[in-house]
Amino acid sequence: MADPIDFYFDFSSPYGYLASERIDELAARFGRQVRWRPILLGVVFKTTGAAPLTSVPLKGEYSRHDFSRSARFLDLPYQHPENFPLHTVHAARAYYWLHDADCSRARRFAHAVFRAYFTQGRDISDLATVLEIAAEHGADRDRLATALAGTALKERLKAECDAALARGVFGSPYVIVDGEPFFGVDRLPHIERWLTSGAF
Amino acid sequence: MADPIDFYFDFSSPYGYLASERIDELAARFGRQVRWRPILLGVVFKTTGAAPLTSVPLKGEYSRHDFSRSARFLDLPYQHPENFPLHTVHAARAYYWLHDADCSRARRFAHAVFRAYFTQGRDISDLATVLEIAAEHGADRDRLATALAGTALKERLKAECDAALARGVFGSPYVIVDGEPFFGVDRLPHIERWLTSGAF
Repeated sequence: MADPIDFYFDFSSPYGYLASERIDELAARFGRQVRWRPILLGVVFKTTGAAPLTSVPLKGEYSRHDFSRSARFLDLPYQHPENFPLHTVHAARAYYWLHDADCSRARRFAHAVFRAYFTQGRDISDLATVLEIAAEHGADRDRLATALAGTALKERLKAECDAALARGVFGSPYVIVDGEPFFGVDRLPHIERWLTSGAF
Repeated sequence: MADPIDFYFDFSSPYGYLASERIDELAARFGRQVRWRPILLGVVFKTTGAAPLTSVPLKGEYSRHDFSRSARFLDLPYQHPENFPLHTVHAARAYYWLHDADCSRARRFAHAVFRAYFTQGRDISDLATVLEIAAEHGADRDRLATALAGTALKERLKAECDAALARGVFGSPYVIVDGEPFFGVDRLPHIERWLTSGAF
């Protein structure tokens, strides 16, 4: 069986959210699984020197317009959050904690976090919100809260970010198919072509 | 009749070259003309603080890979130039000089400059090369050389860059359809949808 596709993203990335709504079904059409790997763009940007898209002169204004239009292009709901971007460290750590116990639950949690932020404007940087969403998906809130206060999960997410950087990940979404990297939700058609042809 | 579509680009932009090979035929399918407007990314980047793509850590290496793959995706020839990026001030000024006399000739010249750089690796920053390509397309080499040495063309290109910035242009290719901006060759499908629906 072919290796899983790696899907790197930050929970505060609009294009990451859009990709999250399409990547599993795309992969499934080719009998492939997807490994979701939340990272922190803040850590990545320290290496690349990049800044959040919306803070770049001219490009920022365009981007806010393009987020919504790209969502409409993909027939997905989108409401640009007032508090943007924000810290996603709790959400990312919670994801890995959930994932180690039940990867399906972690997937549902990740979808819920993205949708809470990009369709309902909920503050997913807030620890209480993250715990609430996790609990809604069957997680033990108290055990998760304890884990989030400890050092193991911090180390775990740091290791994931370091590993992503070592593989060349510089943005969100960033997808790796059999070693071939694709950056941006606008590369979904390229990924489809790659999966169809085995390369192109 | 509908207004022309504005197509902004820098002659040293790989994605600008790819868009240049597709934008006219896309527009023509909707009975639309395209106004080609070379600009200088160096001038734009002074405002936005951006750097050439290939100089960004991690993103640079990915981009060089993506240029070629995006060309294959669009079934276009591409050979990444050894000398990249380079100054395109002579080519851009020559374009406007040609355009004022014969816009069809200017279009053929622009295609030839892009292809000389991205399929043959010719040094399009070189004044002699620019004059040669212009002459190949019927321009008077001596008159063009004189014009390129004067101040009027310098002012003309500067005004074009300033006007582009005032419209929000921050990169290449940048396409404006009836006031709606689209950045990147990967937005061609969005442009097609826009032209089909009148908006979306």
